[in-house]
Amino acid sequence: MFFGSDNQSGASEQIIEALVAANQGICASYGDDQWTEQAVAKVREVFEHPDCSVYFVATGTAANCLALSSMVKPWQTIICHHQAHIAMDESTAPEFFTGGARLITLGEGSARLSFSQLQQYLQQPLHAPHNPVPGALSLTQSNEAGQVYRPEEIAQLADLAHAQGMKVHMDGARFSNALVSLGCTPADLSWRAGVDVLCLGASKNGCLSAEMVVIFDPQLAVDFEYRRKRTGHLLSKGRLLGSQVLAWFADQHWLDLARHANRQALRLAEGLKQHADISVVWPVEANSLFVLLPRNLANALEAQGAVFYDWDVRTLPSGISCRADQRFVRMVTSFVTSDADLDAFLAHCQSV
Amino acid sequence: MFFGSDNQSGASEQIIEALVAANQGICASYGDDQWTEQAVAKVREVFEHPDCSVYFVATGTAANCLALSSMVKPWQTIICHHQAHIAMDESTAPEFFTGGARLITLGEGSARLSFSQLQQYLQQPLHAPHNPVPGALSLTQSNEAGQVYRPEEIAQLADLAHAQGMKVHMDGARFSNALVSLGCTPADLSWRAGVDVLCLGASKNGCLSAEMVVIFDPQLAVDFEYRRKRTGHLLSKGRLLGSQVLAWFADQHWLDLARHANRQALRLAEGLKQHADISVVWPVEANSLFVLLPRNLANALEAQGAVFYDWDVRTLPSGISCRADQRFVRMVTSFVTSDADLDAFLAHCQSV
Amino acid sequence: MFFGSDNQSGASEQIIEALVAANQGICASYGDDQWTEQAVAKVREVFEHPDCSVYFVATGTAANCLALSSMVKPWQTIICHHQAHIAMDESTAPEFFTGGARLITLGEGSARLSFSQLQQYLQQPLHAPHNPVPGALSLTQSNEAGQVYRPEEIAQLADLAHAQGMKVHMDGARFSNALVSLGCTPADLSWRAGVDVLCLGASKNGCLSAEMVVIFDPQLAVDFEYRRKRTGHLLSKGRLLGSQVLAWFADQHWLDLARHANRQALRLAEGLKQHADISVVWPVEANSLFVLLPRNLANALEAQGAVFYDWDVRTLPSGISCRADQRFVRMVTSFVTSDADLDAFLAHCQSV
Amino acid sequence: MFFGSDNQSGASEQIIEALVAANQGICASYGDDQWTEQAVAKVREVFEHPDCSVYFVATGTAANCLALSSMVKPWQTIICHHQAHIAMDESTAPEFFTGGARLITLGEGSARLSFSQLQQYLQQPLHAPHNPVPGALSLTQSNEAGQVYRPEEIAQLADLAHAQGMKVHMDGARFSNALVSLGCTPADLSWRAGVDVLCLGASKNGCLSAEMVVIFDPQLAVDFEYRRKRTGHLLSKGRLLGSQVLAWFADQHWLDLARHANRQALRLAEGLKQHADISVVWPVEANSLFVLLPRNLANALEAQGAVFYDWDVRTLPSGISCRADQRFVRMVTSFVTSDADLDAFLAHCQSV
Repeated sequence: MFFGSDNQSGASEQIIEALVAANQGICASYGDDQWTEQAVAKVREVFEHPDCSVYFVATGTAANCLALSSMVKPWQTIICHHQAHIAMDESTAPEFFTGGARLITLGEGSARLSFSQLQQYLQQPLHAPHNPVPGALSLTQSNEAGQVYRPEEIAQLADLAHAQGMKVHMDGARFSNALVSLGCTPADLSWRAGVDVLCLGASKNGCLSAEMVVIFDPQLAVDFEYRRKRTGHLLSKGRLLGSQVLAWFADQHWLDLARHANRQALRLAEGLKQHADISVVWPVEANSLFVLLPRNLANALEAQGAVFYDWDVRTLPSGISCRADQRFVRMVTSFVTSDADLDAFLAHCQSV
Repeated sequence: MFFGSDNQSGASEQIIEALVAANQGICASYGDDQWTEQAVAKVREVFEHPDCSVYFVATGTAANCLALSSMVKPWQTIICHHQAHIAMDESTAPEFFTGGARLITLGEGSARLSFSQLQQYLQQPLHAPHNPVPGALSLTQSNEAGQVYRPEEIAQLADLAHAQGMKVHMDGARFSNALVSLGCTPADLSWRAGVDVLCLGASKNGCLSAEMVVIFDPQLAVDFEYRRKRTGHLLSKGRLLGSQVLAWFADQHWLDLARHANRQALRLAEGLKQHADISVVWPVEANSLFVLLPRNLANALEAQGAVFYDWDVRTLPSGISCRADQRFVRMVTSFVTSDADLDAFLAHCQSV
Repeated sequence: MFFGSDNQSGASEQIIEALVAANQGICASYGDDQWTEQAVAKVREVFEHPDCSVYFVATGTAANCLALSSMVKPWQTIICHHQAHIAMDESTAPEFFTGGARLITLGEGSARLSFSQLQQYLQQPLHAPHNPVPGALSLTQSNEAGQVYRPEEIAQLADLAHAQGMKVHMDGARFSNALVSLGCTPADLSWRAGVDVLCLGASKNGCLSAEMVVIFDPQLAVDFEYRRKRTGHLLSKGRLLGSQVLAWFADQHWLDLARHANRQALRLAEGLKQHADISVVWPVEANSLFVLLPRNLANALEAQGAVFYDWDVRTLPSGISCRADQRFVRMVTSFVTSDADLDAFLAHCQSV
Repeated sequence: MFFGSDNQSGASEQIIEALVAANQGICASYGDDQWTEQAVAKVREVFEHPDCSVYFVATGTAANCLALSSMVKPWQTIICHHQAHIAMDESTAPEFFTGGARLITLGEGSARLSFSQLQQYLQQPLHAPHNPVPGALSLTQSNEAGQVYRPEEIAQLADLAHAQGMKVHMDGARFSNALVSLGCTPADLSWRAGVDVLCLGASKNGCLSAEMVVIFDPQLAVDFEYRRKRTGHLLSKGRLLGSQVLAWFADQHWLDLARHANRQALRLAEGLKQHADISVVWPVEANSLFVLLPRNLANALEAQGAVFYDWDVRTLPSGISCRADQRFVRMVTSFVTSDADLDAFLAHCQSV
């Protein structure tokens, strides 16, 4: 009954086996190995973009912030949703990597960044060099409220950003969950919709540690190798990341893993909705649920070993509040969430 | 009829004369001169704080951002009003000087940062090292909406900040205007109210270029000389700043200058209020006015040579909007604003 | 016949097996897992220092530069040997992580940093805040010329550094090789000799990716978690690093691996010395050899599949030069260097 | 008898008068004033380069480091002479402004950076992204040893640098002294010789505070306004700098001032050479002398009120040392050094 986060399991069997196999033998270091090379080729194939630049790093913060540092000048701003991981959960890494660019957070009270929110912000008259001016838009897919941006929604936001000279970044720590949720192609959900740089995460969906920076705009890739090296994110043994990535993509493994996680989230939501006192906030579009639980029930579930986290009540949509006898919690499913676990959890819910 | 900003005049006669006098002779460089030494002593006397550390720099951005860099770690946040100069008008200098600390802006829709706004923000559960945590509170005195924080208001905010382990910064680019508005002592409006570091500006109120960083918390001063030097803000000829500061304080000159500016702002507001179609937004507490002018009138005044700036209509208090036939403008008075100028301007208003 | 570098193999069998075992099950993320906890305890035990702070990261550059950022202010200097990895091979990561501290490189023409070199440098009159002043001494153990600093040598250098208010950093990417070479205890070669922060590398000696920052001076550890997070070096799945470290220390595995590597280096040196036209520069004290090879022989060896790297001839000791018919190369042995490989290589040498 | 530095006097009479005149009236702030505009035009005329970009700042450190930050990437190096002001006297401002680029200092034991020194350094094999690679060459004119680079010498160095893809920076804090020493045109000594960005200092030669960044390569100017603003170096009252610059150039005032300083340096050197126990190190090419004085004499002169500074004996040319009964001192003349002062000083020398 672990719904704490999708980064609390190890790697899938297929992936750890690939890592063990790749551990054999001698090869060049610093990414000049066969696994890295093949993994780069695979990403290009999967995204139907033979010219994109692909880089592997070990953490999502590194991926996001290296990407952003390639996209904005230190005197520019990065616009994102106020709950974005880069705004809430990566310390001040965005500032550190970019040399001091500024985050502008929008969308208080809503679960996603909307076109009108962005449009309204951009209407503000800004006078350079005094006012910091927008350099990049960052979207999270699927986002911190478990919501998914449709390709046309992304395209509309990206067009607006591009029209202002901004670049478009996508934090895809859960990109695969969005992909299977929408049933579109990786290309449709990224560069064809206007994304300039995608950070594609595998660590939350099957790998031990593997994140990809996929740069579709070739100008943004020019300095990336320097940036990765000087931030300490070039691993000496490239096979560690390369072999995981290869196994992740093999036989659509990544999509299977994500599909499982999403399905379990939906099942969990369905089960919870049977309980009159439980409400699921926002539609479940990927693998996260946000739930108002009776406090007694939540406490009892924890006593039974269930793991989930309290969430900031101020992110609740207007009109919904968390009563004193309730707790507002986030529950995340993953590729390891078993039917048995779900059944046990839902049975506990019924029995309390 | 220049109401564009209070940094559009030269120095007062008294100050420029002092500068000319100080220009004579040979002395040690880099601040080891008699003017600097005396000016430091004078600041300590004026603030009744013999142990405060005092540093002079040439710009307000340098003063504010050097001060902030002494107060926060790069992984912390600086909380300020959303209209604060550090948030709007200093590019990303705060991030640059602090090594990447983050600005958190509060108070959308209000003209000042309130206790309840700060309190509400600080209730947010934050988990280090993932979430950036508050390191400093920055208040502007008088602020960008021409409002003045009372000593007890500052004390209340500062107590709350200190209780969280934060430091309190005051951007006093117009501190002297606040001082004469309130009629209290410099000490009462700074360290006695809980301010740890005050940036005291003279450039907007009589000097050509002279800003002071006054550090009341001795621990925050330890590295300041290194910071000033490595940001290029240690002038080789200290007399340039020292002599201006000395003359500014001499015979309460600084207060006289500020008093004149405030008085002219009030007179201007009184005059404008006679005009039925003009409204002055927010009370005039220092030397800035925010005015809704009939568009025709505003245009006609500009045609007559009047200078003032359009202001962001989204800063208007809720319930007040700027109609299509209006312009929302900021008008600033200064020590050079003459009665003749005011009379001419108000006469034009009547005649249109 | 791979002598390119000791980072071109995978992990040892014992270590990859431990990683596979640790891959099972659910646990808390971001280092709050049992493997990390046990690994920290193990480091403390091995170093006989129950209070040291221990942090794991994935790369040596991250370890070194995070350590240095905890030890110097941005306006200070870091003194190191001119061949040091931090000076030559980590891009400008030291500057990036420290917020702009400066490297001062000493020891041109010698294979190690000597007491007299450091002493001479420190005699320079420096005037703060104008001149950057020394903040840390960084020693590499074993170093880039394959040399090992004795405990008393370290202590002498560290005493001199400490007397100037500096901190002492040790880049121990090959610390285990130095340890078995000297036959002393980890404590004797680190904190007892005056090292304040040790970066202990396992990636070059048996792990896929695991580096430790061991902080003996508690004041330097205060902000480390913030630094690691905001540089993107906190892995979400702590078991990846923790399990490798645990297996590395288990049953003295780390020392066995290093002992093997050193022994093979000595054997290689002995074999090469049989060849009249080959000279081994500097004594072989760890697992690196620097060799002047007849150009024909070197080329022939490469044609047979041998891998080694040309080295900068300007690092040769004075009095020794690389003739046109020679190549100056570095050869590195590791835990995977087999007797068969050595025999084959030496046989080739004889046969050419 | 002040020979401490050329930044210990105020402004020349002509310049302070211009400043007083410019102090009158209202004008736009932040450099949109008539003085700034005219001063920019004047620089373009003086340098016969109508398209160069010109920016004014208050300190030499700001000028140099802003310039360098426009010329190198944070993972590149800046090559300069080991005595360069940017290497010795500007704290770690170069690192701070450039986001962490590295200084590489050459020329130990020589008074200037030579072609062969640069050439030898550039022969080093460097592997990106691991090794930091050269991004800019910085020359000081006239330099810290009072030496002047001839146009053809600069061109040779600049050609070598450009051939490596580097940019060429000139620290011209004493450019005017070099100019009158060589008798060539400003253009010949800067862009025609291959200088991409010149920092032209007026503070050491007649102004209170005025430094110019003159960018001849238009691509390097693109972001300069952002850089100046976010480092706090955009003054609100542009007239302060603009009016000084205008007066400095008026009627060749700058050259007259420099000519006087240089002449006094030569006279001083001639006088000292009469004294058998005094030796002047290096030829006097601008306005600085480096002198070995009998210790007794030096002490006696100081007792009479003479001011000069001890200099690092390790900068002495090989073969020359400073005996225990000597002091090695630097003496600097300036536009205020009077004949009377020189006569008095030389008379003291004779009388001791």
